[in-house]
Amino acid sequence: MPTPTPPPGTHAARRDRLRAALAEQQPDVAALLVDSTVNIAYLTGFTGSSARLLIGPDVERLLSDSRYATQIERQCPGLDATIRTQAESFVDSTVKVLAKVRGSVAVEAEHISLHDFEKLKGAAAGTPLRTSDGLVEGLRATKDEWEIEQIRTAVTVAEEAFTETLNDLRGGESERDLSYRLEAALRARGAKGFSFAPIIAVGENGACPHYEVGDPKIGDAGSLLIDWGARMPGGYVSDLTRTVLTGEEPEEFRRVYDTVNAAVDAALALLKPGVPLKDVDAASRAVIAEAGYGDYFGHGLGHGIGLQVHEAARLSSLSDDVATAGMVVTVEPGVYLPGRFGVRIEEDVLVTPAGAETLSSLPRAEPLRLRLA
Amino acid sequence: MPTPTPPPGTHAARRDRLRAALAEQQPDVAALLVDSTVNIAYLTGFTGSSARLLIGPDVERLLSDSRYATQIERQCPGLDATIRTQAESFVDSTVKVLAKVRGSVAVEAEHISLHDFEKLKGAAAGTPLRTSDGLVEGLRATKDEWEIEQIRTAVTVAEEAFTETLNDLRGGESERDLSYRLEAALRARGAKGFSFAPIIAVGENGACPHYEVGDPKIGDAGSLLIDWGARMPGGYVSDLTRTVLTGEEPEEFRRVYDTVNAAVDAALALLKPGVPLKDVDAASRAVIAEAGYGDYFGHGLGHGIGLQVHEAARLSSLSDDVATAGMVVTVEPGVYLPGRFGVRIEEDVLVTPAGAETLSSLPRAEPLRLRLA
Repeated sequence: MPTPTPPPGTHAARRDRLRAALAEQQPDVAALLVDSTVNIAYLTGFTGSSARLLIGPDVERLLSDSRYATQIERQCPGLDATIRTQAESFVDSTVKVLAKVRGSVAVEAEHISLHDFEKLKGAAAGTPLRTSDGLVEGLRATKDEWEIEQIRTAVTVAEEAFTETLNDLRGGESERDLSYRLEAALRARGAKGFSFAPIIAVGENGACPHYEVGDPKIGDAGSLLIDWGARMPGGYVSDLTRTVLTGEEPEEFRRVYDTVNAAVDAALALLKPGVPLKDVDAASRAVIAEAGYGDYFGHGLGHGIGLQVHEAARLSSLSDDVATAGMVVTVEPGVYLPGRFGVRIEEDVLVTPAGAETLSSLPRAEPLRLRLA
Repeated sequence: MPTPTPPPGTHAARRDRLRAALAEQQPDVAALLVDSTVNIAYLTGFTGSSARLLIGPDVERLLSDSRYATQIERQCPGLDATIRTQAESFVDSTVKVLAKVRGSVAVEAEHISLHDFEKLKGAAAGTPLRTSDGLVEGLRATKDEWEIEQIRTAVTVAEEAFTETLNDLRGGESERDLSYRLEAALRARGAKGFSFAPIIAVGENGACPHYEVGDPKIGDAGSLLIDWGARMPGGYVSDLTRTVLTGEEPEEFRRVYDTVNAAVDAALALLKPGVPLKDVDAASRAVIAEAGYGDYFGHGLGHGIGLQVHEAARLSSLSDDVATAGMVVTVEPGVYLPGRFGVRIEEDVLVTPAGAETLSSLPRAEPLRLRLA
């Protein structure tokens, strides 16, 4: 299966949108120096691990090294590139390119390290450096039709793999064994693999929101929390969570489950274009607080997904983001009772002009009850 | 299999070594704010994805959030921790902790983003901020006995999985299929999986030094380059490359192979404590240049491995590092002939008091010739 690529002209159009955003938000700078490799992939199609992109009204140049020369020709035909050899440092190569810009250059402050910034500032004496925050991320937060299709596929692959794997749940296998089978099922459907190290947590392990996997056996306790997603060859991801029963239902489990599920519903009911995402977080959080579990939901409600598992926008009490049609975000409230169990339910949600569309079709109204083979 | 952890007291001893290095190299600062999660794992055992560590003669405090509270109790018993809730930003939480330090605090300039640095600088007005480079990395570059044992295991697992998988090489399978089988073989031997996205490159794909995997079938061309490694549950990695023949030998292949192999030998012959690593790079590079392939070896000779696949020290023409007993580094010269094929051979090498020990026992004097099933 060939790697999916967006329709011809997409990358160039994204670069044009970035130029427009730069002209609007920072009219005083001549160019933006993009440091994030994910942002570079979004803007150019280049997927290598080491690059910078200088882009402005009068300049457009990819900087990388000779390991990637052939790959850049393949992935970005026609894009101007400066390819350094191993004898030249990345900073020196960058400084040479900056020297050709007339005016100041903004760096991506969230991505460039303080070290590299200080080095560039010292060496590129003729080019005043400015800072910029989240310009490309802001573009990426709203997905186009092609991107939404990619994420839909990543969600479908994830849920089909989940259903197949859980229909064959084996009491003797460990959390880790189950993760390998789940990943194989993802790959059998065309995924590159997991989109992040999955969380497969038996019983009280589910009370650590960022547990990964270990040796406990499926069925050692009554509940099982699974947080997983697929990364597709084109780079787009899904990110879902279900909490299921694999044995005796722990005391208070159903009350917690129903609370968390209602917290998902509360978020979905409110989510539509124009709503501040901190309000969506608050509405969901209120459901949990009213049930008396407020102290046991310590993380934000969700985050954007796309080329990364965590990207703009944020759904949290600290967020300044506002829901916009085309955003794809997670809604993932949870309640974690230390030493007992945790329940999290996570949906991937597309913000539509009319409201919110849940991309997964996995049921969640009741906890799945699974029989171990 | 339980996750391997170093002998009791190891993390505390590493923090003491860091304090000593800080006192020697930056006696004017009261503490170091560690931003790198890998450095934090090395110093504390905490493996979560979001944390900072403040450490100095009079202070030692881990900062994280409530998602990780239980994990921190498990992994770092006895370590003072500040756990913020979702209602407080990481910067605000950090500023509160910094406010208790009397004197200036150094940040890890290579890890902290310019954005976070500016925010901390603005908010922590009473705490002068300084910069620091590579202090923890410098400690990590030299491995202790326990770490060397972990890396040896990662190398053994990688080579056993390689041998098993390549003894069953199938002409009909793609580069991607082969990567999945190789990863399953790694996991069957206790690895978490690959230590990085492997490069499995048929024929001319091997001429892209950082190609990953794709749809070409094994056997579509005569040569196959495989760059892979294992990540073990304790976090330590291996990183090896072999180039093998799976069909008709491409013209000039053997001459290139022998050159690259001689370039490995030249590096190993020179590598011992006290030798500047740029000299090792130069010696290896000279072999390739003398054979007329100097323009086709565009990357550095190698890098340290440990908790990361790329870490200090560097073997390159730009390196200031000097070989020290206990370093574990890759030696990986290559020659890449665009449109034709690439040859790279990579060894993981321990610097011993007497010289260099190759950790892998996979043969390399002649290219492996494999028969497709």
